[in-house]
Amino acid sequence: MKIGVFGTGVVGQVIAEKLESLGHDVMLGTRDVQQSMAREAKDKSGRPALKDWMAAHPKVKLGTFTEAAAHGQMIVNATSGFGALEALKLAGEQNLGNKPMLDISNPLDFSKGFPPSLSVCNTDSLGEQLQRAFPQLRVVKGLNTLTCFLMVAPRMLPGTHHLFLCGNDADAKAEVRNLLGSFGWADAEMIDLGDITNARGTEQLLPIWVRLYDKFQNPMFNFSIVRAEQ
Amino acid sequence: MKIGVFGTGVVGQVIAEKLESLGHDVMLGTRDVQQSMAREAKDKSGRPALKDWMAAHPKVKLGTFTEAAAHGQMIVNATSGFGALEALKLAGEQNLGNKPMLDISNPLDFSKGFPPSLSVCNTDSLGEQLQRAFPQLRVVKGLNTLTCFLMVAPRMLPGTHHLFLCGNDADAKAEVRNLLGSFGWADAEMIDLGDITNARGTEQLLPIWVRLYDKFQNPMFNFSIVRAEQ
Repeated sequence: MKIGVFGTGVVGQVIAEKLESLGHDVMLGTRDVQQSMAREAKDKSGRPALKDWMAAHPKVKLGTFTEAAAHGQMIVNATSGFGALEALKLAGEQNLGNKPMLDISNPLDFSKGFPPSLSVCNTDSLGEQLQRAFPQLRVVKGLNTLTCFLMVAPRMLPGTHHLFLCGNDADAKAEVRNLLGSFGWADAEMIDLGDITNARGTEQLLPIWVRLYDKFQNPMFNFSIVRAEQ
Repeated sequence: MKIGVFGTGVVGQVIAEKLESLGHDVMLGTRDVQQSMAREAKDKSGRPALKDWMAAHPKVKLGTFTEAAAHGQMIVNATSGFGALEALKLAGEQNLGNKPMLDISNPLDFSKGFPPSLSVCNTDSLGEQLQRAFPQLRVVKGLNTLTCFLMVAPRMLPGTHHLFLCGNDADAKAEVRNLLGSFGWADAEMIDLGDITNARGTEQLLPIWVRLYDKFQNPMFNFSIVRAEQ
């Protein structure tokens, strides 16, 4: 499938690499291709500069948000929370159309340091904001509650653990579910919470996620929902 | 130990029953004893009227918030989030003193129906509000992320699952941890997140908790944090 991945940071790279390995035709989207490719430094998580990453992944394309949106039959939004709405605006409504979009972004506000607060929460969510701004786009919030390294390799953790999906369009959720199944997620591990307003619930997992990350000094953990025997 | 339990609803009853069974000297605290004992109807969760519950638990005492606070060497706050600060004010600073208080309450706002939003979150929390209002009281936020039936019987779920503790006083957290150990919680299942500001993280688990409860139509589940092998 042709997939446009918004965001060239670690999340975008890890998702793109996995998609490429599965045979998909992937284009990363960024605001300014020349500027992104001109960066020399490793990013703050120690990842190589984008140009080095691109050189190591020659099948992955790089384009503007507009080009990546036009390229994709499906969109994955792997921008920061602050960048998400702007990225979609640059992509353009005509290129986004009614495509399914997996929205991984979280409205984390680091302006007052660590741990971050949320720039929107409780009675609204970033997932809803994106859906409202682009009513035709079929937003599926998901994968936003765990590190990208586990998003694409869930079996690195022992046993059963969970991700949460929500969105207004059942077909879009089914497409996302299929894709994530190909990443290694068992069907029962993908909990469908209902419509996009449920992004309030999953985005508000981040405040404890960042605290657990700080405590463990390691992002390799995930939430599991343990239930009584049915 | 003498323990004062604020709140006569299902959470207070279930906690009090467990404490009584462990040999503790428990007093439930309420705003108006006569009014609480006069209620005839079952509550919305189908629990018997308080007077019937009291008759079935003759060792558990019932008093005002003031009396229950004076009674307890430790306090358990099992009021609703809306009632918590008022209950503590009625208890009185001199009766609360510097006692350890396990705060189970959540700032759930049902005024716009289900699912509830939070009346405080993100850059503050109910746990912090209570701690600020009573600086000497040693507030430990905990048990607020699962149903009361599992709070006192964690082994009803299979395998490992977790609760989260936070608070400013290490000794108070140790006392709470000991008590919860006697409920059946393994030490490694009680994750200490640090100071009381981390209540922002645990109270913000409620938005997804209520959605999962609605989805499952069953409160018998809990969060487990699955980590990569260390």
